[in-house]
Amino acid sequence: MSGVVKEGDQVLLVLDWRRKYLIKVKSGGELHTHKGVIRHDDIIGMPYGSVIKSSTGRLFHVAKPRLIDFIEKFSRPTQIIYPKDAGQIIMYADIGPGSKVVEAGTGSGALTAVLASIVRPDGHVYSYEVNERFLREAKKNLERVGLLSYVTLKLKDVTLGIDERDVDAVILDMPTPWLVVEHARNALKGSGFFVSFNPTLNQVSKTIVKLRESGFFDIRVVEVFEREYQVDPVALRPRTLMIGHTGYILFARRGISQ
Amino acid sequence: MSGVVKEGDQVLLVLDWRRKYLIKVKSGGELHTHKGVIRHDDIIGMPYGSVIKSSTGRLFHVAKPRLIDFIEKFSRPTQIIYPKDAGQIIMYADIGPGSKVVEAGTGSGALTAVLASIVRPDGHVYSYEVNERFLREAKKNLERVGLLSYVTLKLKDVTLGIDERDVDAVILDMPTPWLVVEHARNALKGSGFFVSFNPTLNQVSKTIVKLRESGFFDIRVVEVFEREYQVDPVALRPRTLMIGHTGYILFARRGISQ
Amino acid sequence: MSGVVKEGDQVLLVLDWRRKYLIKVKSGGELHTHKGVIRHDDIIGMPYGSVIKSSTGRLFHVAKPRLIDFIEKFSRPTQIIYPKDAGQIIMYADIGPGSKVVEAGTGSGALTAVLASIVRPDGHVYSYEVNERFLREAKKNLERVGLLSYVTLKLKDVTLGIDERDVDAVILDMPTPWLVVEHARNALKGSGFFVSFNPTLNQVSKTIVKLRESGFFDIRVVEVFEREYQVDPVALRPRTLMIGHTGYILFARRGISQ
Amino acid sequence: MSGVVKEGDQVLLVLDWRRKYLIKVKSGGELHTHKGVIRHDDIIGMPYGSVIKSSTGRLFHVAKPRLIDFIEKFSRPTQIIYPKDAGQIIMYADIGPGSKVVEAGTGSGALTAVLASIVRPDGHVYSYEVNERFLREAKKNLERVGLLSYVTLKLKDVTLGIDERDVDAVILDMPTPWLVVEHARNALKGSGFFVSFNPTLNQVSKTIVKLRESGFFDIRVVEVFEREYQVDPVALRPRTLMIGHTGYILFARRGISQ
Repeated sequence: MSGVVKEGDQVLLVLDWRRKYLIKVKSGGELHTHKGVIRHDDIIGMPYGSVIKSSTGRLFHVAKPRLIDFIEKFSRPTQIIYPKDAGQIIMYADIGPGSKVVEAGTGSGALTAVLASIVRPDGHVYSYEVNERFLREAKKNLERVGLLSYVTLKLKDVTLGIDERDVDAVILDMPTPWLVVEHARNALKGSGFFVSFNPTLNQVSKTIVKLRESGFFDIRVVEVFEREYQVDPVALRPRTLMIGHTGYILFARRGISQ
Repeated sequence: MSGVVKEGDQVLLVLDWRRKYLIKVKSGGELHTHKGVIRHDDIIGMPYGSVIKSSTGRLFHVAKPRLIDFIEKFSRPTQIIYPKDAGQIIMYADIGPGSKVVEAGTGSGALTAVLASIVRPDGHVYSYEVNERFLREAKKNLERVGLLSYVTLKLKDVTLGIDERDVDAVILDMPTPWLVVEHARNALKGSGFFVSFNPTLNQVSKTIVKLRESGFFDIRVVEVFEREYQVDPVALRPRTLMIGHTGYILFARRGISQ
Repeated sequence: MSGVVKEGDQVLLVLDWRRKYLIKVKSGGELHTHKGVIRHDDIIGMPYGSVIKSSTGRLFHVAKPRLIDFIEKFSRPTQIIYPKDAGQIIMYADIGPGSKVVEAGTGSGALTAVLASIVRPDGHVYSYEVNERFLREAKKNLERVGLLSYVTLKLKDVTLGIDERDVDAVILDMPTPWLVVEHARNALKGSGFFVSFNPTLNQVSKTIVKLRESGFFDIRVVEVFEREYQVDPVALRPRTLMIGHTGYILFARRGISQ
Repeated sequence: MSGVVKEGDQVLLVLDWRRKYLIKVKSGGELHTHKGVIRHDDIIGMPYGSVIKSSTGRLFHVAKPRLIDFIEKFSRPTQIIYPKDAGQIIMYADIGPGSKVVEAGTGSGALTAVLASIVRPDGHVYSYEVNERFLREAKKNLERVGLLSYVTLKLKDVTLGIDERDVDAVILDMPTPWLVVEHARNALKGSGFFVSFNPTLNQVSKTIVKLRESGFFDIRVVEVFEREYQVDPVALRPRTLMIGHTGYILFARRGISQ
């Protein structure tokens, strides 16, 4: 039965919005938390959505992990992209099933995973990274979420060139995107998308200059904010602390200069 | 050749960030703008990304429309969802290829189109709407973007019940989401997702009370802001006017009460 | 009696949050609005806070204008500072009764008026402006609000030097604040305040470099946002449109390099 | 000489934006920090703005504390108001030299201090508080900043009535502002200001209902955000963490119902 936890399943145990535990269920296994122990055997056979009691009597929900739950738990040698920014990129660069995307740098593979999950089953992600260790971690992360077959990981410096042609989008999360503009122009097909994610406006300005020189058009710069609320029935209100900055997102479309 | 404009193509002519024209190319056709006339025949055969000169000498870029460009031009009897909010919903409700989603109300079909484009090719969207006229417009809109086959449009009041079972997500953009909580619980599978988009916190609070009574968990309330920049190479800065409010997004997962 | 409208009073007639009319009451006068005519004579003798009916039956409240209501109606050859930014400057540059402040440029005199109103009765504002026409308008504006005696208006280019010494703060709203850093250092007393308000981060960055070279410390850069709500008793929610950008505020304190 | 540190002065020693130390200079005194020791005697006689070296060689700036620096260091039995919100209140409720203001609750006296500093020398603040301990702390705090003579502290429940008449503004930072609306109407003169600061929209909604019943007009609800930047010359960018919520500010003006 598909709706029931089985040995080998990856399961998210949810105590509250902040405390969530991702486990791979195996007979005899145990999860130790500050709020008590949960035996894997007690979960096996439970329908998803069920409640399980820990050894100290605290209630945990048994949930199917989302892609973003997995990503949250990725081994992370680098800062990973936030869902708010990934969602923005997908919508504005028109990524969908079948898209062919070049990405750099791979980092921990967080954005790679999001892109791969969306371009399935017929699209593909080509992901460039210069750091071998990052690439190894990304590979493990992508394997865990079952998305590796939609990704080609490349140990290569994207500022030296892009091998692929006729791609739908080139998406950069790296310090010097302006060095990739010309390569992106060659790799993109038609009015395809250039996207760059950067923490400073200086990087954005430099890249805009290059984009204009190379004939790109419909240039757009945006920041996305997420304001979370404290879910209290009698006093619903925004949380005191908020993420005030992740990065600026720069979009442009490839144009053919006359 | 696929990268070249052909008769019958839908093309986006881009003058600048604010002035974009969506046309269906037909021999003999003309686009009249405040910045001059463009003859469709002059575009046919051009590669996407090219520049075309209007009768008054203004330059327009020839682009392939994105899904959000089509949606922007949807016939709109109702307010449509913003990409920033749609992207958030996709990421946090884990919508992807193969997802089975219930949506209400259909409205102009904007969110329907985004969801359909993502669940392709194996998923499906069941969309409820009580207003027959809205449904007719949504049907036309979805046909135009080639997504109708992934959607079942239903002239039906979702507060009276949901016919589908084992769905991955129930996504509501309607005034009384609290009346749908119980139906969503029956329709969702496992730890599936309830999502509601609403302009006021009152609606959110009422719905949270119901969600708790019905055993939902991992409740999250969030607002998403988009801050656009003025793309001026010498003076990159945020635009003066910004959209300060669209709505609050409420997420919850189905739980099984003990 | 002080609480009653008298001939010669300046009165704010308030229809709603967007439509407010500032008049100087004179016997025989009339205010013509899209919502009817109001005769000044009908207001004379009314207590502040009263309601007056226009010729078409619409109700207006009779209010004492605030300083920011006057400023809102200033003759405005230039963009004026927003109260949110002026309030921030007052708090963080520690402006209070008795402060001695240098300001440039005067512009319409909006920030000048706010500063003057706060430093009263023993402080003073020295305001530099290179545009003679702006200075004339500012003078009229300051006279109207009764604050001119706390201000010295100077037709002078502040980038060429500041005449005053031992001032508490130098506050700049002009395009090239970095050219004033050295002059500010000479004009300020002790650990006094340098403040600059600018629309782009480029300007801020350039000024920071100069501030560091000149030994300033405790440098702080901030943006202030105001999110207004639609005051509807059944559906209190943020307004759709919001001011997304006015400017960045840069604060620093004068230091003595070793 | 006034620009030089003297025994008995209150001095702010600034290491960086986060680490600031407020001391009262006394001969023989020492400040112990994680970055070494500073002897008070070494500061005495230094001009404000000077740099002093700690025992471990770290440099601190010698600054005159601002009012908000004192407030930051207030003994704080309660949450204190942020400068961004205090600045907004001063601007929109038209507080200035000479204003007569009623405030409740006093709490730690932070807003009381800001108001007192602005209404000087001819205005006055009447501050109500039901908690005796808070009132004692507030008194000490106000004494330290030399503002106690502009304040009357009252151990009294403001929901039971306001003693003062003809006041310019009633400013509330307490959980049940709607219980004070009627008292505020009696205490305010003319078209005077009602202000309430509250963490939830529920409180705001309830108070708006009361304000309307009592004839108040020009009702305004606003949130103020402050986005701070990381002052790095090569990479100026917003800080990652931001205060996402303090409270909503509600303004209204007293009207005379017909």
